Amino acid sequence: MINNRKIKLINSLKRKKNRIEEGLFVVEGEKNIEELLDSDFQIFEIYATDDWLSDVEHIKISSKDLGRITSLSTPNKVLALVKIPNLNSINTGITSLVIDGVNDPGNLGTIIRAANWFGIKQIICSSNSVDKFNPKVIMASMGSIFKTDVIYTDLHKFLLDSKLPVYGALLQGESIYDLNINSPCSFLLGSESHGISAELIPLITNKTTIPGGKNTESLNLGVSAAIYCSEYFKQNSI
Amino acid sequence: MINNRKIKLINSLKRKKNRIEEGLFVVEGEKNIEELLDSDFQIFEIYATDDWLSDVEHIKISSKDLGRITSLSTPNKVLALVKIPNLNSINTGITSLVIDGVNDPGNLGTIIRAANWFGIKQIICSSNSVDKFNPKVIMASMGSIFKTDVIYTDLHKFLLDSKLPVYGALLQGESIYDLNINSPCSFLLGSESHGISAELIPLITNKTTIPGGKNTESLNLGVSAAIYCSEYFKQNSI
Repeated sequence: MINNRKIKLINSLKRKKNRIEEGLFVVEGEKNIEELLDSDFQIFEIYATDDWLSDVEHIKISSKDLGRITSLSTPNKVLALVKIPNLNSINTGITSLVIDGVNDPGNLGTIIRAANWFGIKQIICSSNSVDKFNPKVIMASMGSIFKTDVIYTDLHKFLLDSKLPVYGALLQGESIYDLNINSPCSFLLGSESHGISAELIPLITNKTTIPGGKNTESLNLGVSAAIYCSEYFKQNSI
Repeated sequence: MINNRKIKLINSLKRKKNRIEEGLFVVEGEKNIEELLDSDFQIFEIYATDDWLSDVEHIKISSKDLGRITSLSTPNKVLALVKIPNLNSINTGITSLVIDGVNDPGNLGTIIRAANWFGIKQIICSSNSVDKFNPKVIMASMGSIFKTDVIYTDLHKFLLDSKLPVYGALLQGESIYDLNINSPCSFLLGSESHGISAELIPLITNKTTIPGGKNTESLNLGVSAAIYCSEYFKQNSI
């Protein structure tokens, strides 16, 4: 059973301001919950319908009530309230994706998922980026959010502090297919609409580009980031 | 000015059934409209607010009225009604992405955009896939829908007829990084939840995989397709 006060609380967590105030975020769907249970994140409560087959302690609710707290058009058996962990500490010595202004939650989720697939452990986002605990980011990350550090900070300061090579993704530069990647390093990508901020350009040590694009203006940011991750993985796994 | 009957018509086009019945679909946003105007697609009507700066003939509407016909949370100056063109004819002799069951409109849009970037002209989708004229597909394709043939057909028949090498994307197989791609060819990818249908597996000539994934179960379908496109482009542009 779930009461109206709790329903109201859970729905309020769709907004970042309320998530910060309550110190909670929402995770939905079997696959995401499975990855959550496998992580160090602290679960506050789990709500599930009868058809969720699990030994994990949870509160039973009806499909109708699940429909009242979900962010999904087709709610999926189980929803967890999770405590927002303490801030991750930044590691300036490891390979990172550095994203200057990602607004679309689906894109950020995709980037987290691709980074996790290709073994990149840290994503640094500019402070104006979409919140990683946004329900759509969580869904799109498919559980990878629990295995990847996503940190919001001043990118200029981070890149200066880290002293690693900075491979910037631009419309013109060395083809990433020809690149000899020095690891550890940072891959710096800008937003689709605004690119990389002018103040960060001087910090790029290697201007690089994804070839192609005779017919079209740009690639999706999630896809671009994934292709950088793929090229990085390729060279580091040999 | 726009009347209520037209507002109702445009909103009805969010559903595939109505798009087929009316023979029309909707395109929104400056970038998409720019690519549309540059294509052979037949425009039925364009609605735009005063701040759309263009010599193209259009019907002026208020921001409030644009808000009544848009599919976007933040409507963007201009919306076009476009005639659904006649069916594209299938070309069995060129390199294609072959997608077995793409349900998410954002994913299909991303795939179209990546294919266009990397010079793949034809995408073959199974009949149970999301409609390419879905507003979210159009938005995510960022105009690439007007430069790429997306065709719905029986994949088994297509792959049999084409007689080209079929590189299947599986969880196990030859690394795409080591692959010597014979062009033209087909790249066959399955849905994230169900993979490639059992009946199509025997038609795969080369089982392939995207390495990585020690920590995670799967990549986003749009990202996987884009990485196949990238590897194809790399070998064919040298």
